[in-house]
Amino acid sequence: MAKINSNYLLLPNSYLFAEIARKVNAYMQANPKADIIKMGIGDVTMPLTSAVTCAMEKAAKEMGNKETFRGYGPEQGYDFLIDAVIKGEYKSRNIDISHDEIFISDGSKCDVANIQEIFDINSTIAIADPVYPVYLDSNVMAGRSGALNNNGYFEKIIYMPSTKENNFKPSFPSRHADLIYICSPNNPTGAALTKDELKAWVDYALENNSIILYDSAYSAYIQEENVCGSIYEISEACKCAIEFKSFSKTAGFTGIRCAFTVVPKELYAFDDKGNKVELNRLWNRRQTTKFNGVSYVTQRAAEAVYSIEGMKETKEVISYYMDNAKIILDGLKQAGFEAYGGVNAPYIWWKIPNNIKSFDFLDILLNKYQIVGTPGSGFGPSGEGYFRLTAFGNKEKTKEAMQRIIKGGF
Amino acid sequence: MAKINSNYLLLPNSYLFAEIARKVNAYMQANPKADIIKMGIGDVTMPLTSAVTCAMEKAAKEMGNKETFRGYGPEQGYDFLIDAVIKGEYKSRNIDISHDEIFISDGSKCDVANIQEIFDINSTIAIADPVYPVYLDSNVMAGRSGALNNNGYFEKIIYMPSTKENNFKPSFPSRHADLIYICSPNNPTGAALTKDELKAWVDYALENNSIILYDSAYSAYIQEENVCGSIYEISEACKCAIEFKSFSKTAGFTGIRCAFTVVPKELYAFDDKGNKVELNRLWNRRQTTKFNGVSYVTQRAAEAVYSIEGMKETKEVISYYMDNAKIILDGLKQAGFEAYGGVNAPYIWWKIPNNIKSFDFLDILLNKYQIVGTPGSGFGPSGEGYFRLTAFGNKEKTKEAMQRIIKGGF
Repeated sequence: MAKINSNYLLLPNSYLFAEIARKVNAYMQANPKADIIKMGIGDVTMPLTSAVTCAMEKAAKEMGNKETFRGYGPEQGYDFLIDAVIKGEYKSRNIDISHDEIFISDGSKCDVANIQEIFDINSTIAIADPVYPVYLDSNVMAGRSGALNNNGYFEKIIYMPSTKENNFKPSFPSRHADLIYICSPNNPTGAALTKDELKAWVDYALENNSIILYDSAYSAYIQEENVCGSIYEISEACKCAIEFKSFSKTAGFTGIRCAFTVVPKELYAFDDKGNKVELNRLWNRRQTTKFNGVSYVTQRAAEAVYSIEGMKETKEVISYYMDNAKIILDGLKQAGFEAYGGVNAPYIWWKIPNNIKSFDFLDILLNKYQIVGTPGSGFGPSGEGYFRLTAFGNKEKTKEAMQRIIKGGF
Repeated sequence: MAKINSNYLLLPNSYLFAEIARKVNAYMQANPKADIIKMGIGDVTMPLTSAVTCAMEKAAKEMGNKETFRGYGPEQGYDFLIDAVIKGEYKSRNIDISHDEIFISDGSKCDVANIQEIFDINSTIAIADPVYPVYLDSNVMAGRSGALNNNGYFEKIIYMPSTKENNFKPSFPSRHADLIYICSPNNPTGAALTKDELKAWVDYALENNSIILYDSAYSAYIQEENVCGSIYEISEACKCAIEFKSFSKTAGFTGIRCAFTVVPKELYAFDDKGNKVELNRLWNRRQTTKFNGVSYVTQRAAEAVYSIEGMKETKEVISYYMDNAKIILDGLKQAGFEAYGGVNAPYIWWKIPNNIKSFDFLDILLNKYQIVGTPGSGFGPSGEGYFRLTAFGNKEKTKEAMQRIIKGGF
């Protein structure tokens, strides 16, 4: 009698964004003429830049020609893209990352979800709270979480609350964690660790034999000089951190899927007998066995992001979104609200007034202003009382949304 | 102190194809002028067809236009592609598969490797022997295998030998298996189950409460009428089987990555408390949590495979490869060897004479004929004594390889 992985049943029934979509669809069906402004899901809206689409068209043509066709590529990614990543992301920051430390993938969602597989099933897990739900969910599904308590916490997970009191920067784990998930700039709060703060995390990890799983998917949005674009700007981080970066938000690749993960060769964990094992070797084994590389066409598109034209165009798109972030931040403040983030990230973290629950606030915003956002509680218990708006929308719509809020009051 | 998933260390050190590549590279460095004919790795060589590349170019252009740009797509795949799959793969075979039973992915390798995640960690696993190594390796990594014995068998895995004696069709498991992996047409033997044989498997699974994980990646190569293109041609199979299909070998997508998996809604397994749980719901949860969909550009390419022009072009490419298969099969027989497969699959299963070990035969072929193939033992213990040649090469090169063998004798 075949049995399921019962850990799956520990997860609450529906994934955050699906539940929001359900509510919005119900509202739209009931109010077919409503002009809804979507500031919820973290998806980009600007098209791919010209450098990127030209590269894709060229690659598509190559694939139709016998002389230039390519079948299976390296599971770890093509040299041309890895070289571009090293030059564009690391050499430019004076960081020395070698070729075989980089693994190209079809998205950071997959990588941050799959990375736990290479670690022991009894590893202790610390997760920033609130944060992108995939770190938690993938560990629940693997069986590392224990049960979900009534208060919204899984019993074996170490939560690192990021609240107004600590400027939304996660506090160190309350007890030893083998694996520490950090997202900076953070989704959903928009808070970004400064260089000093990040150094404190690296020191902590080295001292406590923890491994930091560092999700840096939003690093292209960093505006302040004292915020690192890579954890490896901190020397010694290559001894304690795996870094995840993505083209999704950097260059609008949410629909064509490309990301990369850096697993330094100096990074070790221990086997059952206490022997050191290179994590780079394990991740390589995982990827070569269970993954077959990213589309050649997509990899050429990603390479083009680092061309001179591509970098210029990408910068313009990010400026567009960050202008939106400022519009939202200023608008909410003008309307008398507290709001955070939006300086080094495309996310604005809105403090909900009057102790209204964040899922109730979703309904209020939808009904009163026809604006969709994301309830903070969907990102963890410490997200309760907050609401995430994103800067990925159209500028005129973003302005209009703020006008509705400013005029409507609360 | 972070610990690794020690199950990874149970795997033999290097993945089959990587080890072959290493040997070939060493030979090439030592013999830089050798004209090596590669008949080893199962990769296609013909370019993508015109219908497919046109669709990709068009989609790339759409992604560069604000009005037609698409960000995140549904994790399960776009409707247009799912509709095309239902029409092209199932309605055409009088099979009724519904929209939400199909999950588009970036490759069958990922899907067959990931599917085990939704099942209990103590599930018993039966695997055809020899077969594509990913079924086994993914279960070893998950911790279901036990240790590797000296004779090449993992202690907890139920092997289903497919030998000359049973026409390379796997025998039923020797004891109860919760999950049964079958690949038909088979990689590497090229053997394909007839409709009667497949019905016997479905009956067996229903009677024994087993779930069949049916890898049908090579179904486009089937030439004989009594061989099924889908397991769902057997009524009741939707109560016991998950089917994996791919565009990789069907339409040369090895470099652009697209496949799909069918998880029928009628398919159940049991939770810890003995309740029935829909596997479709679990796989949907797995995919929505840990995967973010396939590139829009690739999905448009896959849709084009089912256009009238696309189907015509695809058929021509497959004929080209199957002509090669005949050349190899006839050539080996003319040279006095025993050889199998090659009728419903692009793989020829070559019986090695004189009890030579298959990894030694790799060296012999390389040195004597400058031909690369794949040692049968790499696909499981019952593959020892055999060698896989593939029909994916250039026709002239394939002919020349056979001439070398016919002339050279053994």
